[in-house]
Amino acid sequence: MTAREIILKKRNGQSLTASEINFFIHAYLRGEIADYQMSALLMAIYFQSLSFDETVALTRIMRDSGKVVDFSHLPGGKVDKHSTGGVGDKVSLILAPLIAAAGVYVPMISGRGLGHTGGTLDKLESIPGFKTLLPLSRFKKQVEEIGTCLIGQTEEICPADRRIYAMRDATATVQSLPLICSSILSKKLAEGINALVLDVKVGNGAIFKDAETAEELATHLIRTATAFNLNTVALLTDMSQPLGVAAGNWVEMVEAIDVLQGRGPADTRQVTLALGAIMLQLAGKIKDLQSGMTLLRALLDNGAAWKKFLEIVRAQEGDITFLENPDKYPAPKHRLEVTAERDGFITAINAREIGRLSMLLGAGRKTVDDIVDYTAGMVIHKKVGSRVEKGEVLLILQNSGQLPEENFTQTVRNCFTISQQSVTPPKLLRKLLSSQGVHSITEIE
Amino acid sequence: MTAREIILKKRNGQSLTASEINFFIHAYLRGEIADYQMSALLMAIYFQSLSFDETVALTRIMRDSGKVVDFSHLPGGKVDKHSTGGVGDKVSLILAPLIAAAGVYVPMISGRGLGHTGGTLDKLESIPGFKTLLPLSRFKKQVEEIGTCLIGQTEEICPADRRIYAMRDATATVQSLPLICSSILSKKLAEGINALVLDVKVGNGAIFKDAETAEELATHLIRTATAFNLNTVALLTDMSQPLGVAAGNWVEMVEAIDVLQGRGPADTRQVTLALGAIMLQLAGKIKDLQSGMTLLRALLDNGAAWKKFLEIVRAQEGDITFLENPDKYPAPKHRLEVTAERDGFITAINAREIGRLSMLLGAGRKTVDDIVDYTAGMVIHKKVGSRVEKGEVLLILQNSGQLPEENFTQTVRNCFTISQQSVTPPKLLRKLLSSQGVHSITEIE
Repeated sequence: MTAREIILKKRNGQSLTASEINFFIHAYLRGEIADYQMSALLMAIYFQSLSFDETVALTRIMRDSGKVVDFSHLPGGKVDKHSTGGVGDKVSLILAPLIAAAGVYVPMISGRGLGHTGGTLDKLESIPGFKTLLPLSRFKKQVEEIGTCLIGQTEEICPADRRIYAMRDATATVQSLPLICSSILSKKLAEGINALVLDVKVGNGAIFKDAETAEELATHLIRTATAFNLNTVALLTDMSQPLGVAAGNWVEMVEAIDVLQGRGPADTRQVTLALGAIMLQLAGKIKDLQSGMTLLRALLDNGAAWKKFLEIVRAQEGDITFLENPDKYPAPKHRLEVTAERDGFITAINAREIGRLSMLLGAGRKTVDDIVDYTAGMVIHKKVGSRVEKGEVLLILQNSGQLPEENFTQTVRNCFTISQQSVTPPKLLRKLLSSQGVHSITEIE
Repeated sequence: MTAREIILKKRNGQSLTASEINFFIHAYLRGEIADYQMSALLMAIYFQSLSFDETVALTRIMRDSGKVVDFSHLPGGKVDKHSTGGVGDKVSLILAPLIAAAGVYVPMISGRGLGHTGGTLDKLESIPGFKTLLPLSRFKKQVEEIGTCLIGQTEEICPADRRIYAMRDATATVQSLPLICSSILSKKLAEGINALVLDVKVGNGAIFKDAETAEELATHLIRTATAFNLNTVALLTDMSQPLGVAAGNWVEMVEAIDVLQGRGPADTRQVTLALGAIMLQLAGKIKDLQSGMTLLRALLDNGAAWKKFLEIVRAQEGDITFLENPDKYPAPKHRLEVTAERDGFITAINAREIGRLSMLLGAGRKTVDDIVDYTAGMVIHKKVGSRVEKGEVLLILQNSGQLPEENFTQTVRNCFTISQQSVTPPKLLRKLLSSQGVHSITEIE
């Protein structure tokens, strides 16, 4: 068995055996298979895909390439949420403390932003002092003690996935369903959870723009997770415009604080509550989704979630005085209002472009080595369905570096489509799927 | 413009501009684009192919990545031959001195063997002392002085091709028509030739087994070469069984000596004469192919080609006493007769397998770093169409290392198909193609 033979087999559209995949991954980790052979295999997989059995084998091999956390000694559900990535998606920041406040364990390993999508770790690290790279022993202890811990993928977790994932963006092999599946699930399976909710984004700010492919991804993820007895539910949510009002790092943190204190934009709150109710149901905490929604609303409104958040931040060495008084945070050097050039209704906001422009402002990374400007980002004043008058503020952009180009504000303005006809805002919650099929979403709307 | 965007564009089936290809290749040579991005692009090209314009651009950029030899001060034709690779193909060893003896310049840059096909350089290096890695200045001088020089691709020639080619075998991206085209032609265009004959092999020992794909490759090569005003003719020749009787390095050299001295197997001699006549015609040396055949037969039979060969070997520091007296050459440590298990007619010989087994004996390389055993190889006693009796020798295998496996001789025996019905040997010369279309081959048969 040689690397070349395995690449050739996949290139020719044949299925790989578990032992071939195992050989390839482990020889790669040992340095006997080169990066350029791995990327050639990834591109062959992009074109020829992987069968269900191959996807399960790859997921298992990647999970077992590192340590697997065991939380079986803890009572009840250990539930995490994973989002396929969008613009303005700060839900994890709210959900982890909220669900922990409800008494369910949330071991959460998150990623960094790359390209037009942000990353939970960067948002957390915008809090001065906050540590996301903790050893697994400390991760385990914190989950046991305060119910949740938010960390990044350390050396110990799925090294195979970490090394492969680092190449996928640079080789245009991200958009492969089986590769996405195995990357997401290997990490989640290593967290020691027994249930998972997936926020599968749909729309132009998502990894897959069209509803069919997004649903296909959800189905793939559920089917693969089920092979590992990981109870998994997917909620398809709208990503045709940014979620909430903020896109960036500290600006999103401020929005998350708002929601955690019982305020915040309705859409961010709604997606959080819906995903949270599903998590409580998966953990067996509630009798139906509706009562879950009621419980979670109470935990946001009575300060319990907020208190839990401060507890997490303190435990991970973040300076909570910036959370308690956000005005204390270093102000961005530049702040620019982007205004409407005519009257009308906002009928569309190009989410992907908002994400890309935020990245260019410094909020994200073009390549993995870029340094993030935590003050950079955008705050949206008008969302789809809003009426706007000429001269009114559509969005405020801010950063502490240079503006990327001369016509930047005009480029930002072009993200908004203004028409004379009003439109209904897009439906936020699109579809609820589990291994049993499609479920009603009326209880979480 | 980023590497990722260019890979993505090709992955999505779009055409790349010349400036995008130029950026990618040069950034790669500067080390700003990683091997793993290059191999991802190569795999994307395998699946999405390259247009004619893209192939021409890639060929030009690869040619111009190194030095381009200028022979325009030399009178008459400067013609080379390129074979797409087969088993037992020692034609270059004979053709270079033969055509030089006819007064036509043959600047020849050859490759090494990899996988089941041998390489001219390895065969030449089986002559003790023979140097194939000469600086271009010396290459130029030798062509000027004795009409031909046989060297390998030095650092100076097409470094882009050299680096890319080194990765293609290991990433299963060899069998891409546009990549084959640009790799062959960039090197040939750098030699300073004004005409080229291609020996496009057809059959299971060739890079493409089926006649249609082989013809497609020939057409691609001719069309691309024509864009550079390189007058190019392709002869499709049989590779359904090994050419001649020897497969290996020194064993092939011995067969080449036989042909150069006016003897040798009929098929090796026929392919050499046919390709040679085309070269003389391309150089404007002869009025028709038939008179070319007559001239070349005379040069083989009167010792002129043999004399020229000794001149070349001397010039490139080889010890000609081994050529003058091949018995002086170190004998292989092992020599094994493989005999027929029953009476009948040879109806097929698995050329690819003969090539692969020769490689396993030590005659070739599984990977680029393997060391070649020059004494290793096979001498075939029965070719397709021959009658054989039980116990008669089909083939003699030899090497100086270990036999690769216990059942090796049986594996070799299985390369021969013996039937009760006799068959006509395969037609050796299949088709003659130029930019003007298909030509008759009766004159060279």
